[in-house]
Amino acid sequence: MSKEPKKEAKEKIILGIDPGTNLMGYGLIRTSGKNYEVIQYGVIQLKKYAGHELKLKKIFERVSGIIEEFIPDSVALEAPFYGANVQSMLKLGRAQGVAMAAALSREIPITEYSPKKVKQSVTGNGNASKEQVAAMLQTLLNLKELPKHLDATDALAVAICHHFHEGRVQTRGRSQGWKSFIEENPGRVKK
Amino acid sequence: MSKEPKKEAKEKIILGIDPGTNLMGYGLIRTSGKNYEVIQYGVIQLKKYAGHELKLKKIFERVSGIIEEFIPDSVALEAPFYGANVQSMLKLGRAQGVAMAAALSREIPITEYSPKKVKQSVTGNGNASKEQVAAMLQTLLNLKELPKHLDATDALAVAICHHFHEGRVQTRGRSQGWKSFIEENPGRVKK
Repeated sequence: MSKEPKKEAKEKIILGIDPGTNLMGYGLIRTSGKNYEVIQYGVIQLKKYAGHELKLKKIFERVSGIIEEFIPDSVALEAPFYGANVQSMLKLGRAQGVAMAAALSREIPITEYSPKKVKQSVTGNGNASKEQVAAMLQTLLNLKELPKHLDATDALAVAICHHFHEGRVQTRGRSQGWKSFIEENPGRVKK
Repeated sequence: MSKEPKKEAKEKIILGIDPGTNLMGYGLIRTSGKNYEVIQYGVIQLKKYAGHELKLKKIFERVSGIIEEFIPDSVALEAPFYGANVQSMLKLGRAQGVAMAAALSREIPITEYSPKKVKQSVTGNGNASKEQVAAMLQTLLNLKELPKHLDATDALAVAICHHFHEGRVQTRGRSQGWKSFIEENPGRVKK
């Protein structure tokens, strides 16, 4: 039994974004206290647009559209790992910049998580594969089937990661992450 | 004497941006046919803002503010050279991305020019120093004094470069650049 006073859990919407220059994954979850459910997820296809500038324009339009439709309380972004060359990093940075601008221009806070942190939060293993992350999400979020592009589930993963992190910071103090979350919330793990 | 039919020159406003993560230079010129004059120039100071996200937010707000005040017809951007490391390129890309988003969201076309092209257009020498570019701009634009931060004149330089380039493409076909522009327009060079 918790000794903390019981509070009405406020509903929140988190938009997770997995930014890329060819495919941008997005995933929306609704949270209420420790509960959460998926609202929508998908990818923004960018390959079909010729020219970097047009791609950026489409990212801004699509992310703005998603924000206006769902009015998220926060945006969680998967920060890239620095493996690529400087030119591709600049392009990726621009793609992220326009996606971030869509949120910043509406005063929505953005939090970034490293890929390792996202994987750790969702699967308990910072080195999990994309497929392992997707399978865990399918279980956690009760998804009927996995999308064709795992960028969409990656975006859901960063939204979930933000939810766990927010919950931890606000209500549970220092924690051992996902493992302790499972221990503390056995009912939340769908078998 | 030109044999081209005389046309009413349409006034246009060009916003030049020299993007950076600590200082972002901007410069506005008004053009009318081959004539041009400076409207305003300056820098957006970003060092004082702690945190990368806050900097991005300020870039978006300030660039949006400038665009709403002056309603430019086009934006010209100085593309960076790829010298830095991947992490700084990502940051720079994001800074550019939010600045570009401010223009893209208002349907204003963006054109990019390499630093070499900007220097070539303004001074006739693609390897000119920042100081040489600034001095040439002071002459071309009749500036009373040079600003403290040359990022502001760099932004004016890219706006001027865009003006020359636009003029060349639309009315003069292939050209030899600034040198031939001076030859063709001796009256335009202030002694």
